[in-house]
Amino acid sequence: MTNDRMPKDRVNDYSKAIIDERLEFLRKQSGSALEHIGNYTVDPEESKGNIENIIGFSQVPIGIIGPLLINGEYASGEYYVPLSTIEGAVVMSYNRGAKLITASGGAKTRVYRDGIQRAPVFILKDMDAAKAFTEFLTRNFAVLKSEAESTTSTGKLKDIQIFPLGKAVYVRLEYYTGDAMGMNMITKATMQLVSWILRNFPVEEYFLESNMAVDKKPSYMNFICGRGKSVTAEIVITKKNVERFLGTTPDKIFRMYRYGHIGCSMSGVIGGNLQYANALAAIFLACGQDLGNISESSTGANLVDLTPEGDLYFSVTLPSLIVATVGGGTSLPTQKNCLDIIGCYGTGKVMKFAEIVAASVLAGELSLCGAVCHEDWTASHEKYGRNRI
Amino acid sequence: MTNDRMPKDRVNDYSKAIIDERLEFLRKQSGSALEHIGNYTVDPEESKGNIENIIGFSQVPIGIIGPLLINGEYASGEYYVPLSTIEGAVVMSYNRGAKLITASGGAKTRVYRDGIQRAPVFILKDMDAAKAFTEFLTRNFAVLKSEAESTTSTGKLKDIQIFPLGKAVYVRLEYYTGDAMGMNMITKATMQLVSWILRNFPVEEYFLESNMAVDKKPSYMNFICGRGKSVTAEIVITKKNVERFLGTTPDKIFRMYRYGHIGCSMSGVIGGNLQYANALAAIFLACGQDLGNISESSTGANLVDLTPEGDLYFSVTLPSLIVATVGGGTSLPTQKNCLDIIGCYGTGKVMKFAEIVAASVLAGELSLCGAVCHEDWTASHEKYGRNRI
Amino acid sequence: MTNDRMPKDRVNDYSKAIIDERLEFLRKQSGSALEHIGNYTVDPEESKGNIENIIGFSQVPIGIIGPLLINGEYASGEYYVPLSTIEGAVVMSYNRGAKLITASGGAKTRVYRDGIQRAPVFILKDMDAAKAFTEFLTRNFAVLKSEAESTTSTGKLKDIQIFPLGKAVYVRLEYYTGDAMGMNMITKATMQLVSWILRNFPVEEYFLESNMAVDKKPSYMNFICGRGKSVTAEIVITKKNVERFLGTTPDKIFRMYRYGHIGCSMSGVIGGNLQYANALAAIFLACGQDLGNISESSTGANLVDLTPEGDLYFSVTLPSLIVATVGGGTSLPTQKNCLDIIGCYGTGKVMKFAEIVAASVLAGELSLCGAVCHEDWTASHEKYGRNRI
Amino acid sequence: MTNDRMPKDRVNDYSKAIIDERLEFLRKQSGSALEHIGNYTVDPEESKGNIENIIGFSQVPIGIIGPLLINGEYASGEYYVPLSTIEGAVVMSYNRGAKLITASGGAKTRVYRDGIQRAPVFILKDMDAAKAFTEFLTRNFAVLKSEAESTTSTGKLKDIQIFPLGKAVYVRLEYYTGDAMGMNMITKATMQLVSWILRNFPVEEYFLESNMAVDKKPSYMNFICGRGKSVTAEIVITKKNVERFLGTTPDKIFRMYRYGHIGCSMSGVIGGNLQYANALAAIFLACGQDLGNISESSTGANLVDLTPEGDLYFSVTLPSLIVATVGGGTSLPTQKNCLDIIGCYGTGKVMKFAEIVAASVLAGELSLCGAVCHEDWTASHEKYGRNRI
Repeated sequence: MTNDRMPKDRVNDYSKAIIDERLEFLRKQSGSALEHIGNYTVDPEESKGNIENIIGFSQVPIGIIGPLLINGEYASGEYYVPLSTIEGAVVMSYNRGAKLITASGGAKTRVYRDGIQRAPVFILKDMDAAKAFTEFLTRNFAVLKSEAESTTSTGKLKDIQIFPLGKAVYVRLEYYTGDAMGMNMITKATMQLVSWILRNFPVEEYFLESNMAVDKKPSYMNFICGRGKSVTAEIVITKKNVERFLGTTPDKIFRMYRYGHIGCSMSGVIGGNLQYANALAAIFLACGQDLGNISESSTGANLVDLTPEGDLYFSVTLPSLIVATVGGGTSLPTQKNCLDIIGCYGTGKVMKFAEIVAASVLAGELSLCGAVCHEDWTASHEKYGRNRI
Repeated sequence: MTNDRMPKDRVNDYSKAIIDERLEFLRKQSGSALEHIGNYTVDPEESKGNIENIIGFSQVPIGIIGPLLINGEYASGEYYVPLSTIEGAVVMSYNRGAKLITASGGAKTRVYRDGIQRAPVFILKDMDAAKAFTEFLTRNFAVLKSEAESTTSTGKLKDIQIFPLGKAVYVRLEYYTGDAMGMNMITKATMQLVSWILRNFPVEEYFLESNMAVDKKPSYMNFICGRGKSVTAEIVITKKNVERFLGTTPDKIFRMYRYGHIGCSMSGVIGGNLQYANALAAIFLACGQDLGNISESSTGANLVDLTPEGDLYFSVTLPSLIVATVGGGTSLPTQKNCLDIIGCYGTGKVMKFAEIVAASVLAGELSLCGAVCHEDWTASHEKYGRNRI
Repeated sequence: MTNDRMPKDRVNDYSKAIIDERLEFLRKQSGSALEHIGNYTVDPEESKGNIENIIGFSQVPIGIIGPLLINGEYASGEYYVPLSTIEGAVVMSYNRGAKLITASGGAKTRVYRDGIQRAPVFILKDMDAAKAFTEFLTRNFAVLKSEAESTTSTGKLKDIQIFPLGKAVYVRLEYYTGDAMGMNMITKATMQLVSWILRNFPVEEYFLESNMAVDKKPSYMNFICGRGKSVTAEIVITKKNVERFLGTTPDKIFRMYRYGHIGCSMSGVIGGNLQYANALAAIFLACGQDLGNISESSTGANLVDLTPEGDLYFSVTLPSLIVATVGGGTSLPTQKNCLDIIGCYGTGKVMKFAEIVAASVLAGELSLCGAVCHEDWTASHEKYGRNRI
Repeated sequence: MTNDRMPKDRVNDYSKAIIDERLEFLRKQSGSALEHIGNYTVDPEESKGNIENIIGFSQVPIGIIGPLLINGEYASGEYYVPLSTIEGAVVMSYNRGAKLITASGGAKTRVYRDGIQRAPVFILKDMDAAKAFTEFLTRNFAVLKSEAESTTSTGKLKDIQIFPLGKAVYVRLEYYTGDAMGMNMITKATMQLVSWILRNFPVEEYFLESNMAVDKKPSYMNFICGRGKSVTAEIVITKKNVERFLGTTPDKIFRMYRYGHIGCSMSGVIGGNLQYANALAAIFLACGQDLGNISESSTGANLVDLTPEGDLYFSVTLPSLIVATVGGGTSLPTQKNCLDIIGCYGTGKVMKFAEIVAASVLAGELSLCGAVCHEDWTASHEKYGRNRI
């Protein structure tokens, strides 16, 4: 059955009938058969909590790279990493990097910070009240922590950063959220915490979020102070392997990236890298991560060096990687499959996942450095494909 | 037939047999059945040029928002916009914003700049040579243009921005690329242009890309100077509609966003907004855009104001939106379907698409502003869902 | 006695004879009589430790503003603040602001953070060593503190911020330095601390300063994390006084500054203000502060608001104000005089000085806001002078 | 004659009597003799137009560095450059750098851009009006130019950059102002231009300055797009001279600065350098420049490289240097003397002055690099003085 209007009152209805009804409406609207989005193999009911007004499914190809050898604290051994993307040559480029890393003895990885923020702002009567409020917060950390944590079995309030601005007090609350991304968890916790504050201190006005979290936006705040998982990965590659896999020399890559880092600095890029965003987009999509977090997660900085032996040292550092292995889209059918491929589905896996992401990011930086440096750029471009740089 | 190793030499083989072989290998590796990624309805052969080493497909639910009324230069009328996401409440939140916009007479939209860059760096003998080189480039613009355009029927070299740094000259080449995203087109054009330069001026060293493009990284360069489509959208909403749709007042939203914009400024966010990245991620995924570009595209700034009548003025501006309606993933099955829903598939549609994206971004900002301001935040949060802020 | 060459070996000679000899050489070189720089009234010997190769003195006019009423924690009462500048109308403009503040009951001021940094970088063997090094630093904080503080009676090591980047570890050491600016004090302390590290942990390479301090450069690091004194000042001004002193309305100023803050945000300004640098330059020069610190100190953010009564709320916040009341140029003759005018010379005065600086900065922001908003801009410009905006 | 109140109505009185009266008042207020600021040798009347409410003069020691050999387009030959500062060891450090440059054959210098901005913002009825307004501005460039230039014999309107933000249009007007800093000149010109606009296009609201100029604030806008004079200087120094003058090696400096540039990038510094601000502060003070411009002028970036022979390549680039050789404080007594020492007083000298400033900045970067790298840092620090780093 179809009608002239989108069915409005059943946004949370995931039945085939209602999906077809919506599609039928859109078919009429657009004059297109829309044969593919309605032709899926997963059960729409499983998307409950992940989508509303569902009309079908996107299908995006997944490629595999590997083996990618990692010597991390949580990830250890050879991994095959699924990348879901529509950009030709991305998989091939990352695959080349993965093999180079593996041939070079594997990437070292390390998560060096973990915590996620929400940041309400409070407007007080005046600066004196703002000062008193700051002291009030500091003095009552234990109570605030207890209030916040009363709403969650996982979340822990770790720290409060306070930024005064005249009569306004911006408060950046850092939480530990385990294997979940945790924004919902800590929003609830923060609401509870704020309620307690409002009952115990005269606040003129407040907003639960002031943008200082900083969620879904690239920022120096998160690049400097960190958000989500802060993770770094490194490799040393012999001259011989640089030549064999990348067709260039350590010295050339060193020089190229140096001019590239300065290029970032001259352009007001937050950090300095070539294409962290590509790896993140492809892994996030495959593994059920929130793609809105690509923006913030992709800020980071490479360190490129030459060893005394003339080999290539290369590291990537992502101070603000937002990932999860429980909740969100992680348990959707294909997404869970992809997490399973790298053994990262579920509780206790998020640190491992962060390390695998970092090692994959490293693979992409190496390969793209090679592509930019390759002497026969013109010729190789056609062969290697359109997206090598 | 399976074996113990990933089949290596057929990265560009899209046959069912080879996909199954790869999957079988991964099943053994992971100990997981991986039943979903191999269970797709589209033809893998159609992904040729978009993926390598293919092992299957991600399936991500698509929700629909609308009607979203737009009064743009290219987009005109009511649209239903497909959002593909795994973040619950995103579709519902954007849907609320869309209906509010429509009830308010529609969003005005405008693309005010169009052009995409590649930025080689040239290292000269010294500063004198760098000066001569700069003059050489300026003098030979017509030749450079002709060389670059000899490689493409669509691409046009529009402008050259030159950034000297001692003996180095960073050159930011701006192209027009029609409805394609165009990076491959202009990489080829730039190689041709650079070849001509190398034959006609003594350059010590060069790299085809210096990061000043700036591709796939958030930057002040692109926020200030623009990249891809620079687009803006606006709406005026009556007090009554703000109350009816968002449960708050124009004044409250005005005050909230003002503290939020200052929050961005205090955090070193490039620009100032709440969640542009969410709309971009969901539309990009549905419509076959390169998700690696979310990073750069999501920098932008809101302007929020109160009219003399006390109504709410709200605009979004995205100076660096990277979109395409031809090439890339736009002709993949479900992706083309989604472009068809908004009538944006193919040649001559990219400006319309950019306007629809901007109007959708506006919908999300409005709705989230409402969520943050809503007096009964605590109560409403449970009802509206976990991702409202 | 003169000769053809600048006397080389007596850079630390401050006698009249050698000054004349240098001047005579410069007179010949330049063909100018240079009658003024050699015609000073202070004793050159007193400049020992502040200058080398002395040839005379700059004379820069000092104007006075006030009374400026301050209700701070350290500064309390009416102050007359000396501004040394060559920019006409600066003094008059700040004077107007000072009187407006005083007529409005005085500025509230507060120093909310105090600490100054030096930031060595250590390059380790690899990421594992970097991790071990980070743990080593954390574990040995007490020893590091004791080593650092063994070199100074005033300086205290307050905190260590650690920023890993692959195998490199950037270490930001925060010290308390009392009334001194303290860079020399903490450089010495850091050398001692680093010596101990080098004896106790295998470091491949290190540099005593990595630029993360961040000294003499504007940075998001110091804007966000603070450096020197972090200070804020505020005022509420009635509609009537805004009209009387500034010839405009609170609403107009509110609107103007809002567009101005967005203008800062769109331009990639660190923070948002109109002219903090002007007040800092003029007070720093008068009071013997290091003018090289204007760069870093001038980053900060205004908060402008309207009260429910329609009055104007205005605050300034300087997170990274570098000031001293002992050491440096504070005891030079005219400089000490200027510190004496505000009762800020010597030990125990630096917090008071910081508050007076903040209140003066506030005076300038208010006055310039008025100038930009004044309806009869064209007419008033001629009357008020060339530097009102 | 003295009284209990600061004399109020004679802010533009520069007579000895009124100065003494003001001083007497301040003596009573402060309880200090203030013997030095009232003891000057220049004529206060000459400060008319540079100061108001004058109470005396600051005296700041001037040191001299040189010879500094420059091979620029405007500056050519050996210069002795006056630095006025109260920071001990600054002169000695820059002097070392100057001699190193001279011994290395001199610094190349080049001004590669010249123009200064004022940036009004116009708020239109809506986005459609904003679009029409943008077209109106573009179409009427010749008229705007003619209006603006009708107010000045020197100033020329060079370019208009337009930044739309919803219904607001930020307009960045670039002028040529000859040897003057030019802000007053272009403020007047802009007022005239804006008056014409207001008579010919319906504008809802406007402000003469939107902060996008960007005056007196460090910004990515000016770092990327330039303001005032954009200037660069370079040198190649042999291994031998690096060792002789700086006690270290090119390789060590190369490595140190590389970690330092990354340190800047990690800290959100605009550009990357060690201490441009120090040279600017000292020259600006000596030569009658506006010290409020140190903030903006000090953003810039070094390029450090090793030549194939292992020598050191070093360049400095200042995209936003605000200088003048006429107007402002340039004709004050000691200030004119200092300009005379380098032959930079008056018309036709500003490009030469900009080049000398850049070469001096280069001297300081080299010397400080040496200090940070010197193996015997601890020992040398005591000897070289407190401000070497």
